[in-house]
This record gives sequence, C-alpha cells and structure tokens, in this order.
Amino acid sequence: VTVHLVGAGPGDPQLLTVRAVELLSTCDVVVHDRLVPAPVLALAPRATRIDAGKRRGGDPMAQHQLNDLLVELGRSSSTVVRLKGGDPFVFGRGGEEAEALDAAGVPYEVVPGISSALAAPMAAGIPVTMRHHASAFTVLTGHEDPTGDTDVDWEAHAATGATLVILMGVAHIEGIAKRLVVGGLDPGTPVTAVHWACTDDQRVTRTDLASVGAVELTPPCTIVVGDVAAFDLSPRLDTG
Amino acid sequence: VTVHLVGAGPGDPQLLTVRAVELLSTCDVVVHDRLVPAPVLALAPRATRIDAGKRRGGDPMAQHQLNDLLVELGRSSSTVVRLKGGDPFVFGRGGEEAEALDAAGVPYEVVPGISSALAAPMAAGIPVTMRHHASAFTVLTGHEDPTGDTDVDWEAHAATGATLVILMGVAHIEGIAKRLVVGGLDPGTPVTAVHWACTDDQRVTRTDLASVGAVELTPPCTIVVGDVAAFDLSPRLDTG
Repeated sequence: VTVHLVGAGPGDPQLLTVRAVELLSTCDVVVHDRLVPAPVLALAPRATRIDAGKRRGGDPMAQHQLNDLLVELGRSSSTVVRLKGGDPFVFGRGGEEAEALDAAGVPYEVVPGISSALAAPMAAGIPVTMRHHASAFTVLTGHEDPTGDTDVDWEAHAATGATLVILMGVAHIEGIAKRLVVGGLDPGTPVTAVHWACTDDQRVTRTDLASVGAVELTPPCTIVVGDVAAFDLSPRLDTG
Repeated sequence: VTVHLVGAGPGDPQLLTVRAVELLSTCDVVVHDRLVPAPVLALAPRATRIDAGKRRGGDPMAQHQLNDLLVELGRSSSTVVRLKGGDPFVFGRGGEEAEALDAAGVPYEVVPGISSALAAPMAAGIPVTMRHHASAFTVLTGHEDPTGDTDVDWEAHAATGATLVILMGVAHIEGIAKRLVVGGLDPGTPVTAVHWACTDDQRVTRTDLASVGAVELTPPCTIVVGDVAAFDLSPRLDTG
C-alpha cells in the first residue's frame, strides 16, 4: 500500500485512531485538508506537507488535480498519507479519491476517522439517538441554497422523525429551517449549533427552528435538529 | 472524572482512539459490552473486567441495573471505563448511562469511537456519501418487526434519497425491504450486508432489495441500502 486515505477526526489529536498516528509518524508525504489543525499535523514531523486547499498555478486545486496528484505520488516510492478532516468517506469526496486510485491501479488503504457529524453533537452533550426521543439520525450538508434547485429534499427529511445533523449549513440555515417546518417539523423543535467542535474554540448555541434564522452563527458549525438537540450531557470533552 | 464512557470502535484494536487506549491502560475497572472483542479488552491488562451482558442473580442485567452499577462504581475511588462497541452515543444507550451519571452527580466524560455504522460500509469499500450518488446518509436500527407497530417509518426513509445504514436488521430484512419498495425505492436498489466488519471474520454479501429476503445472513451485520452499496473501493482494511 502506498496511499493511505486517513481520517483525521474532529480536530483533537487524542481522537485520532492508533492506526492514523502510526501512519503519520512514518509516512514521507502528507497531503492534508485546509482545516486539519496544527497539533494533528505535528504528528507527522518528518513528512513533506502538501496543503490540498492551496492553489496550483493561479487557481485553487480542483478535485481532479488532487486526484492526479495522489496517483502521481502513489506511483513514486513515497509512503503517502492523504489526511482528511473527520472520516474519509463522510462527505469530503474521499470516495472520488479512492475511485481515482483504484482506476489507476495504485494500491491504497482507507482508514476511518471520528466523523465530526458524530463528535460535534457529543461534544455538546447530545446523543444522536436516544430511547423515546430519536431512533435514527441523518447526516447531510446544507451548503446548497435551499430556495434554489437542490439535491436535498428537506421536506422528506422532516417527515422521517430522524435527528438531522447538518454540516456546512450556516449560510443557508434560515431557508433550511423554513423548509423543515413546511415538511411538518414543529417550529419549536430544538436546534443546537456546535462551532469548531472538539477544539479550544468550541462554542455551542442553542435555539429552535423558529428562531435559528435570527441567530448569528459563524462557520464551521455542525447543526443538530431534533428533540435530542435539547440534551446537555457532558458539556465538553475533557481530554486534558 | 471517574467514569469514562468510551467508544471501542468496530472491533480492530488499531481503530481505537489514542484517548481510549490511554484510558484502558490506566483504569481500574472496565465494564464492557458483550461484543467487544478480546484483543480490545487486552488493552486493559490490569483492570477488573465486568461483562455488562452477564446475568446478575438469575436475569440478564437490565439497563437500570447497569446505570446503578456505573453510579456505584463512580462513587468509589476507582477509575472506571464503560467500554461500548462503536460510538457511545450511536444506539447502545450511552445517552441513558450519561443521563444516570449526570442525575447522580457523578463526574463523567464521553469519548467518541469509530461507529460501525460508518466503519462497516467503508470496510466493504462503500462511501456512504458520493457525488451524483448520495448526498445524505441515515443510520437506523432494524431490530423492530416492520410488520408490527414500529417506531421506524420505513416508507418516509425511502423517500429521502439518503443512503440507509441499517444496524441489527438481519432478522427483519425481508419485511424492511418490502416497506422500502412500497415507499418508492426501486427493487433493484443495491443492498450490501457486512458481517463482523473490521474483524478477521468479516464477510460481505451483495444483493438488492428484491432479493435480500432470500439471502442467508447471520448477525451481526451492518446492511447498506442505496446506490452507493454497489461500490467496492478498497475491499478490506489492511491494518496489518
């Protein structure tokens, strides 16, 4: 195996897997997402670092350029870690990178990470499932404008009764909340936003569907919608 | 902090977090789920082990007895790890245990783990989200009889377009598949079952909604329903 697609977890170095730490400490090259924090990158002191968010020439690196770079590095004699925030196969387009490596015949491995879709609610004391409150949860992105032509059927999601964990939803949360109410959710449904979960900058904002549009939120946030969002068990991860 | 609710991950000791390994190596007592495998328990060589699935008196330990046990241990001078398969707040009733500790005023911490709801699809080479295939995923349990009075609205879930990751669904998968088709999913929708994901006994079965009822499956399985279930990227985690 020459390319390892590795989940970096939510940001706290103690929440990396044993396997991830081992790979970081021995690899030659790390190609990392822009949001992976410095204390995590510090676990790979001898590796060459490539910022996947940096521009190549004048433009930001497009996904196909990144795929090509991984294939190229995978054909060299280097051991390469492609370090992705959270889990490689939960958004973040790790599936496309694996597909490109697969198509090119480059040996690769995928190592799961703690997804911030799960770690962020927990860091705010919210169990995404809870007897008598939620028997399912759905993870989805809110980066598309919900008033335009969108892939996400918010009304259908409102009808399932699942806890909704919305990533990248800050810019469009007002429109999303409206569509969820149209879909049948009570305007009083609890909403909790977790800003920079599992880092020293973590901030938790609690509101409801009726009011969330008027609340000032700053990305990145993980937004939890549903009865369980009112829970506050273990307000912060004490990993000190 | 005296009680640590810790996610054990999907079964492979290399997929525990750094924090989990540290706590296991130093704790006095481990209260563990029945399904946590021996190589993971071996990371706590000096701890007293209590099997939470074992009977107390003549009956299996009920959840309220388990909650009481954790409170009692938390009031002693021991450092206690409550080791739960996967992630403590994804099913498995970790939220109830945290609530009991909270109510009793026992200091506790929750440490996330890699949920098998995410690790099992990955171990079968399935990205739960993938551009042009799935922009959301839902995790839910299939342990209730879908022909009876059930909490899970399978038809509503069929309408969202999300990848469905079904835990504990082997016994009822035929009825579940029927309800998903009634809800509008194509009978040809790919279904992949991952048996004992991330262990040496892992076995992957690929079928579709029309045929899954006729396939012999053995618990425990994680069952993935949706377009992405047809993917086969990195067929197994090579953590050797």
